Amino acid sequence: MELLSKIATNDGHGENSAFFDGWKAYDSDPYHPTNNPNGVIQMGLAENQLSFDLVQEWVKKNPKASICTSDGSNGFKDIAIFQDYHGLPEFRNAVARFMEKVRGNRVRFDPARIVMSGGATGAQETLAFCLADPGDALLVPAPYYPGNDRDLTWRTGIQLLPVICHSSNDFKITRQALETAYKKAQDSNIKVKGLLLNNPSNPLGTVLDRDTLTESLKFTNDKKIHLICDEIYSATVFARPNFISIAEILQENADCDRDLIHIVYSLSKDLGFPGFRVGIIYSYNDSVVNCARKMSSFGLVSTQTQHLIASMLSDDVFVDRFLSESAKRLGQRHKILSRGLSQVGIGSLKSNAGLYCWMDLRRLLKGPTFESEIELWRMIINDVKINVSPGASFHCSEPGWFRVCFANMDDETVMVALNRIHKFVIQTKGSSSDGINRKQYGRSKLEISLSFRRLDEIMMAPHKMSPHSPMSSPLVRART
Amino acid sequence: MELLSKIATNDGHGENSAFFDGWKAYDSDPYHPTNNPNGVIQMGLAENQLSFDLVQEWVKKNPKASICTSDGSNGFKDIAIFQDYHGLPEFRNAVARFMEKVRGNRVRFDPARIVMSGGATGAQETLAFCLADPGDALLVPAPYYPGNDRDLTWRTGIQLLPVICHSSNDFKITRQALETAYKKAQDSNIKVKGLLLNNPSNPLGTVLDRDTLTESLKFTNDKKIHLICDEIYSATVFARPNFISIAEILQENADCDRDLIHIVYSLSKDLGFPGFRVGIIYSYNDSVVNCARKMSSFGLVSTQTQHLIASMLSDDVFVDRFLSESAKRLGQRHKILSRGLSQVGIGSLKSNAGLYCWMDLRRLLKGPTFESEIELWRMIINDVKINVSPGASFHCSEPGWFRVCFANMDDETVMVALNRIHKFVIQTKGSSSDGINRKQYGRSKLEISLSFRRLDEIMMAPHKMSPHSPMSSPLVRART
Repeated sequence: MELLSKIATNDGHGENSAFFDGWKAYDSDPYHPTNNPNGVIQMGLAENQLSFDLVQEWVKKNPKASICTSDGSNGFKDIAIFQDYHGLPEFRNAVARFMEKVRGNRVRFDPARIVMSGGATGAQETLAFCLADPGDALLVPAPYYPGNDRDLTWRTGIQLLPVICHSSNDFKITRQALETAYKKAQDSNIKVKGLLLNNPSNPLGTVLDRDTLTESLKFTNDKKIHLICDEIYSATVFARPNFISIAEILQENADCDRDLIHIVYSLSKDLGFPGFRVGIIYSYNDSVVNCARKMSSFGLVSTQTQHLIASMLSDDVFVDRFLSESAKRLGQRHKILSRGLSQVGIGSLKSNAGLYCWMDLRRLLKGPTFESEIELWRMIINDVKINVSPGASFHCSEPGWFRVCFANMDDETVMVALNRIHKFVIQTKGSSSDGINRKQYGRSKLEISLSFRRLDEIMMAPHKMSPHSPMSSPLVRART
Repeated sequence: MELLSKIATNDGHGENSAFFDGWKAYDSDPYHPTNNPNGVIQMGLAENQLSFDLVQEWVKKNPKASICTSDGSNGFKDIAIFQDYHGLPEFRNAVARFMEKVRGNRVRFDPARIVMSGGATGAQETLAFCLADPGDALLVPAPYYPGNDRDLTWRTGIQLLPVICHSSNDFKITRQALETAYKKAQDSNIKVKGLLLNNPSNPLGTVLDRDTLTESLKFTNDKKIHLICDEIYSATVFARPNFISIAEILQENADCDRDLIHIVYSLSKDLGFPGFRVGIIYSYNDSVVNCARKMSSFGLVSTQTQHLIASMLSDDVFVDRFLSESAKRLGQRHKILSRGLSQVGIGSLKSNAGLYCWMDLRRLLKGPTFESEIELWRMIINDVKINVSPGASFHCSEPGWFRVCFANMDDETVMVALNRIHKFVIQTKGSSSDGINRKQYGRSKLEISLSFRRLDEIMMAPHKMSPHSPMSSPLVRART
C-alpha cells in the first residue's frame, strides 16, 4: 500500500519549473547593495512595494484600526472569536466599495456576494472545486501565470487547456483561438467547463479591450460554460487604455447568463499585501456564492486582518490618494525600466498595467526553441545575475519571451539591474568573437553574441554571501 | 451538462445537521440579558472566552507586537509582503515552544516541522489530501466532532468510518473496537489509510490515557496506517489526569514508524482565537511536511497575525500565567455547570478537559431511539431555549447524549441557563400528568415527564427580538 496519496506524490504543485528555480537561485545569493552587491537581483517577483509609505502613514494616524493598540484593544475579544464565514460586515462592505472605486465607480458590487478565500490562490481553487469535476477542463489564454496550474488543478483534478495566443497580434485573445482550443478539447472527449481570463494580464501587463471581453462573454455564453475573470491586477493600470472589468461588460449585455460569471480578486497586488492572504470570490451565481462560502472555512481571512482592512478601505480619502499615487509610481517605474531596456535595443510588449514587463529576447536565442530559451535564462541568472522568468513557465507558445518584474525593489536596485544589462550589451558590441557559436535570427539589428562568462568575470567581485534569509525563500510565494 | 461540480451539489459540507440547525435557532432568537432575556442561550459553541482580560492586558503592554502601532509600524512593509509558506521563523519557533509548554515540557517540537494551515479545519483537510486517495478511509472513534466530515471528506473524497465506543466503559477506545472497525472496512473492500484520534476529546471532554494511546500507536503501526492526533484542546485540561500527547508516547516507543505520526493543532481553542485562523500540522514524516507546506499556500496564516502570535507566545511570563489561569477558570466553570446539573439529577460523563460537558439525558427520551433524541432536542431548544448539540450529530452510537458548552458565556448567563433547567425540573416534579406519554427508562430515579410547552408558557415573556447579528451567524463557525 502506498503510504501517501497520489496528490502528495505527483508533481501537481508545479514547483519544479524554471519559474521557481529562479527564486532558488536568488535565494542562495540575494543581491544586497552593501552586503552582497554582486548577488542575484530578484526580478521574478510580482510584488507592489512602491507605496508602502502611504500605508504606514495611515496606520500611524489610525490606531483604532488595530485591535492591538490601546485605542483598539477593547475590540480584541469580539474580533478574535469572530469566525463567521460571511466575514465582518464592515470588511465585506469596504472591499465591495474598494472594488467599485478601482473600476471607476462604473459598476456596483453587492457585499453579500463577497466571499473570502486564502488569497487568489485559494479563490481559484475554490472556484475550480465549485465548477468542475476531476477530468473537466478550463480554457486559459497562454501565456498565463504559472501558479494557475497548482491553484486550479493540483488538488481538484481538473485540467487547464491553453488557448494559444501569438506575438504577431500582441497575444490578443481571438474568437478563433478560443474555438480552436474548445474544439481540440471536444475532439479529445474532454468536458470544457469554463474560460479563465486574467485582466490585466500576468505576464503581459496589458488590459483586455472591450471587444475581447465582449467576445469572450459571448463565446462562454454560447457554449454555456463559465467565465472566470481574474482581476487581481486591476488597480495596477498606470496608463490608458483604462481597465474594463467583466462587471461592466456584463452590465452592457443584459441578456447573458449571469450565473456563469465569476470574478477573482485579491489585495496582494493592488495594495501590495500578499502576506495578509486576502482573496475574494465575487460570483453572480447564488449557488456558487453559497458553496464557495462554505468552502471558505478552509481559508478564511484572519479577523485581525479583516478588521484592519475594513478600517483602511473605508477611508475614502486614503483610498483615492493611494490609488492615484500608486498608479503614478508604477507608471514611472515602468517607464524607467522599459526605456532603459529599449536604449540598448531590448524591446518589450507595449503595456500599461501590472508589476512587470514582457521582454522580448527572441533574437538572443541560439535557435527558436525552448531549449535555447532555458539556456539563455540560465546564462542571465548565473552570469548577469538577474532573476527573470522564462516564457515557457507561462506556457507561452513562442520561445524567447521573459517576464521582468519592476515593483519589488527600490530605485537604486533598478538602476543596478539596468547597469548590468547595459554593461552586458556594451561588452557585447566589443567582443563579438567569443567562441560561442550563437546563431542570430529574428528582426534584431543588435549584435549580442557575447561571452556572458567573460562579462561575469569583469563584473563580479568575490561573493560575500548574505545569510540565508527565510524572508525571501524562493519556493514559497503563494502568488506572484 | 451540469453547471456546477458534484462537490458543489452534494451535501458533503454537512451543514444540514441538527448541530448546525441549533445555531440557526440561536441566531434567530439570541439571548441577551436585557434586550432579549427569553432568547435562546447558545451552549452549542465550543469557544474559550474566559481569559480574554489577560490577553487584552498583554496587548496594551506590548505595542510592538502589532505592525499597526506607532511602535510597530516600521515593520508593516516587511510583514505585509512576507508570503513565505514556511511562515515567519519567529512564529514557528514560538508555536513550537508553546506546544512544548502545553505538554509540560516533556517533549520537544522542531520548528522546521511546523506547517501552517487555515485553522484546524484546513489542517485536517490538508492531511487528508496528503495521506489518502478518494475512496480511502480513516477510522475515527465515535462520538466525534461533526465538522470532521466536512473538513476531512468533502473535497478530498475520502471517507470516515466510525470506531464504535460505548458508554458502558465511558466511551473508551479499545483495541477490539479498532479491530472491528478495521475488519468491517476490509470486508467492504475499503482501504483504511489511518486512524484519527481527538485528544482531549470533543465532545467527551476526556483525555486519552497512556494505555489507549500506546495501544492506538501499536494498532496503527501493526497495520502500517497513519495515526493523526488532533490535540487542539490540549491546553483546556483543568484537572487530573494530565494531558498526554502522542509526542510523549512516541518518545516511549522508539521502535515505531515515525513516518506514520501526525499532530493537528490550532490556537482557536487553547487561546480562544478562532477568528485568527491559526492551524498547525506537525508531522514526523518529511514528505508530509513538504507536501503539506506546499498545500498551505491555500490557507496561510495572515502575517499580521503571525507577527502578533510570535510576540505573544514568546513571552514566557504571559504564557505561563495564561495557561494556569485559563485552566483554573475552565475548571471553575466546569464545576458550576456539572454541579448545577447534578443537583437536579442530570448526570454527565466525568471529564477534565474541553469547553463542554457530555450530558446524559437518556432517561428523558421517549424511547432509546435517535428519533426520540431529536424530539427531545427540539423541545430543549424551542421550549427551554437552550441550544445544546445532540449526540447523533457527533455520530454517537447511543441516543440520549448531548454536548453542553460552558466557556462561551459569562457567569450570569450560565446561571440563567441553570435556572431555566432547575425551573424545568421543579415544574416537572409538580406536573407529572402532562398528557405526553413519555416512557421512562434507564437508571434514572428522577421523574421528568413534564410539558415543556407548559413550562415555556410560564417562563416566556413576549419576545423582544434582537436584530439579526451577523457576529453570531449560526452556520458559519469553521470549527467548534
